[in-house]
Amino acid sequence: MNNGQGYVSGLEGVVAAQTRLSHVDGAHGELILAGYRVEEIAPVAPFEAMVFLLWHDRLPAAAELAQMRVELAQWRMLPTAACDLLRAAAAAQRPAMDALRMVAGVCDIDLPTDDSNDRRRDIALLARLPAAVAAYWRLSQGKTPIPPDPALGHAANYLYMLTGVAPTPARVRGLETYLNTVIDHGLNASTFAARVIIATQSDMTSAVIGALGALKGPLHGGAPGPALEMVFAIGKAEHAEAYLRARLAAGERLMGFGHRIYKVRDPRAEVLAAAAEALYATDGDRSLFELAKHVEATAVRLLAEYKPGRALQTNVEFYTALLLHGLGLPSALFTPTFALARTAGWIAHAREQLANGRLLRPASEYVGATGRRWQANATPTQLISFPSWQFPS
Amino acid sequence: MNNGQGYVSGLEGVVAAQTRLSHVDGAHGELILAGYRVEEIAPVAPFEAMVFLLWHDRLPAAAELAQMRVELAQWRMLPTAACDLLRAAAAAQRPAMDALRMVAGVCDIDLPTDDSNDRRRDIALLARLPAAVAAYWRLSQGKTPIPPDPALGHAANYLYMLTGVAPTPARVRGLETYLNTVIDHGLNASTFAARVIIATQSDMTSAVIGALGALKGPLHGGAPGPALEMVFAIGKAEHAEAYLRARLAAGERLMGFGHRIYKVRDPRAEVLAAAAEALYATDGDRSLFELAKHVEATAVRLLAEYKPGRALQTNVEFYTALLLHGLGLPSALFTPTFALARTAGWIAHAREQLANGRLLRPASEYVGATGRRWQANATPTQLISFPSWQFPS
Repeated sequence: MNNGQGYVSGLEGVVAAQTRLSHVDGAHGELILAGYRVEEIAPVAPFEAMVFLLWHDRLPAAAELAQMRVELAQWRMLPTAACDLLRAAAAAQRPAMDALRMVAGVCDIDLPTDDSNDRRRDIALLARLPAAVAAYWRLSQGKTPIPPDPALGHAANYLYMLTGVAPTPARVRGLETYLNTVIDHGLNASTFAARVIIATQSDMTSAVIGALGALKGPLHGGAPGPALEMVFAIGKAEHAEAYLRARLAAGERLMGFGHRIYKVRDPRAEVLAAAAEALYATDGDRSLFELAKHVEATAVRLLAEYKPGRALQTNVEFYTALLLHGLGLPSALFTPTFALARTAGWIAHAREQLANGRLLRPASEYVGATGRRWQANATPTQLISFPSWQFPS
Repeated sequence: MNNGQGYVSGLEGVVAAQTRLSHVDGAHGELILAGYRVEEIAPVAPFEAMVFLLWHDRLPAAAELAQMRVELAQWRMLPTAACDLLRAAAAAQRPAMDALRMVAGVCDIDLPTDDSNDRRRDIALLARLPAAVAAYWRLSQGKTPIPPDPALGHAANYLYMLTGVAPTPARVRGLETYLNTVIDHGLNASTFAARVIIATQSDMTSAVIGALGALKGPLHGGAPGPALEMVFAIGKAEHAEAYLRARLAAGERLMGFGHRIYKVRDPRAEVLAAAAEALYATDGDRSLFELAKHVEATAVRLLAEYKPGRALQTNVEFYTALLLHGLGLPSALFTPTFALARTAGWIAHAREQLANGRLLRPASEYVGATGRRWQANATPTQLISFPSWQFPS
């Protein structure tokens, strides 16, 4: 089972998939999305065009783009079981990522099971998860969910279902740029989970809920909330240096800086900074954007001073927080919104894995006991009694 | 990202985890479960003792075993949201594995979220999933679910909730031996999925639903149903050779024979054959057991003739089917029942991965296009109108 290799902690450096979907060059700070540099395509493409690109390896013609928008709009209505579950999750005050993962498992309940990898499941998942997040958010705030508006595109409809207000073109563009920028990122842990699951020839829903489960872990889903909280805590540009020096002197990590892979500035940070700048120029608190820019510059300068040689740069979380905040999203929805973008990437990777068709089954190394012998050391025991319970009718 | 290695298809031979939980020696046909050979412990240990063994690396004392039984009995009641979801899944006629995966995501809805890796979640998942499968099965048959009986152990209660009849000691022993035998099996695809998910510091429910999603794939969850159908199709011992020769001559695969890892007889097949023999000796159609033994011997002999050098032996599926059929389980519940056993192993592996604490993040190799340039080739499009939809109240 070992082929002469030892245990590879974290599978670091092991090439577990070949993909045409994205390429992360951490040394050069480059991210390629199906052949396009992220800064080339993310700020201009409609989100539906990016989805088409990942799923078909080319951009759509106008009629194909229209078709993709129509199909996604058609599939936004949630099955009744999903609505009931959102209500129960809201009553239980579950975090939005928990509610999203629960409801994602139910979003295909009205689809036929005879072909579990019917492509309608891909569309239904992508279309319904934003509707579910928006409905869940309103329920959790004691508000009535808003029905989807089929006249709106995918990103616009998500903002509309959250607020009941049709978003401005600047906000739609801001959200589309965000979704495009984070739609895929190589073989990250959630994408890998989706591939491991579907490699058994399982179904797309199973792959997506596994990926959602991985994404919700703090080592993966990121923490864009704290990066923004730091900017708010600093409050004024003249406080930035003292605040950041105190954090660094105390040995704390600055949220929004540094990345496991990128050793230069994360190219997604550039794209999101520009998108945030454009958004705040027309809509929102421009002074907050200026403060964030100052905090960023100060933090990068101080990180070079306190941690020389580490080359800690602004990561995707910092401007994600600023951009999503500018779009009116509460920080509790930052990670779920990230998930809505990445769902398109998960589905593309899962399709690629299905086409490849190989079970992903690594080996393990046994480090436990051997040669134990059974002795009947346990006597049968009576159980105590509990109040009776009935399946609710 | 590559460290000089190339793409490792299927991650074959890569050691992705160290574990004290189980060891599969395919060359020698040996399976070690936390230090015990499967044939030493599976036929004699109560299932709750096996769970304790995997979770604590030692067998329980009598008081600890009693405590484990009490805790599992206490957690069998399903949250209302789970009951509602089972009803919706039954109305939609979903396969039992789909219903199990859906409801597993909801089984912790009544637990606090402040510590998502609270150990009560482990107990709740293990206790509630059998109750959910049993309730779902009855609902799907148009029957009323049966409340759990806290006086019964884990295995006995599952059979009771399926039928409403307290099972005989021989049936309880048969099911416990089955559950013990398949409780863990190295780093199989579902166990690996659970580890990938929880390695982001996600929660136990997310790990278990990801594993369930992987297990439901036909390349993993196995197909014990068809092995039994073959025995029924043969019907009489004297038809076995002609039937099997016809299948082999047509180039068909015989279900229940051959394994990716075991090159000699799967040790689990031995344990399950003995358990089936004991069960059918007191309970059930002894002639079916004799027929199955004859089919097995004939199949192994003919496989050696048609596929010399392949050493195709009886695998775990063949006697799983016979044993579970003898316990009164319909073949639609064979894979879900397998999942109920393996849930204990998934939880143990996930705990081990959490304690290890490293993100599982392999690399990918980009094989897609480069240097593509954006051209605005898509014009904005109007969407067609749909009937309005309201979130159901």
